[in-house]
Amino acid sequence: MDSNCIFCKIIRQEIKSYKLIETDTVYSFLDIGPLNEGHALIIPKYHGQKIGDIPDEYLHDVLPVAKKIAKAVGCTDYNILQNNGKLAHQEVMHVHFHVIPKDENGGLIIKWPTKKLSEEQFKAIHEKILAKLEN
Amino acid sequence: MDSNCIFCKIIRQEIKSYKLIETDTVYSFLDIGPLNEGHALIIPKYHGQKIGDIPDEYLHDVLPVAKKIAKAVGCTDYNILQNNGKLAHQEVMHVHFHVIPKDENGGLIIKWPTKKLSEEQFKAIHEKILAKLEN
Ligand SMILES: [Zn+2]
Ligand SMILES: [Zn+2]
Repeated sequence: MDSNCIFCKIIRQEIKSYKLIETDTVYSFLDIGPLNEGHALIIPKYHGQKIGDIPDEYLHDVLPVAKKIAKAVGCTDYNILQNNGKLAHQEVMHVHFHVIPKDENGGLIIKWPTKKLSEEQFKAIHEKILAKLEN
Repeated sequence: MDSNCIFCKIIRQEIKSYKLIETDTVYSFLDIGPLNEGHALIIPKYHGQKIGDIPDEYLHDVLPVAKKIAKAVGCTDYNILQNNGKLAHQEVMHVHFHVIPKDENGGLIIKWPTKKLSEEQFKAIHEKILAKLEN
């Protein structure tokens, strides 16, 4: 836990939140800057900026809790999003997963500018990643 | 498994993929329409369109595998994204999690049009969701 982190303070209930589900390892609550009604956050009860900083045992409840929240919100279409780093739009530096309902009234707006890669480029990228995975 | 689903075919290795990590419950590979180099997909070995359709045991390996892939790709900034439903940009109707590196060369583009809600509106939404969670 980090004493200056707003999400650590929410977990310790030093700051109020519209709490949803809490388990031994995660805490969830409504985002107060929502993209749509029911926009929720799920955070591990472990302070770390990026998902790579969080031990696996603090991640296991995240997606089961996201499922429950989406069902309770009653949205049929929704995005689950976790941003790592400022370039990737992270604003609070404690790992958080967004559950964002999408309908005609609001939600996440995405642009999807794909790249064309040759088979050679794919093979080179693949080999480079596999070599790192094997280390 | 669904015999017409392209991702089920990839899991059964009836269609080639640039495979990364496979566990008992998930399969991961390079996205062939990448937003950036190293853009990868992680899919549960269970056919379902939305995360709500997937049993929890097929979700537990997803985020630990995402961590390993991001580390092997070597990206410092990246988004983890899972889209549910056509409105939310889902294109293949088998649950998949994107790991998308973000840097000056590419990645996911996001717009974040937040809504202003009053305390009364937050309370009403919160109570409505809590009532459903308790059922
Ligand atoms: Zn924190
Ligand atoms: Zn499938």
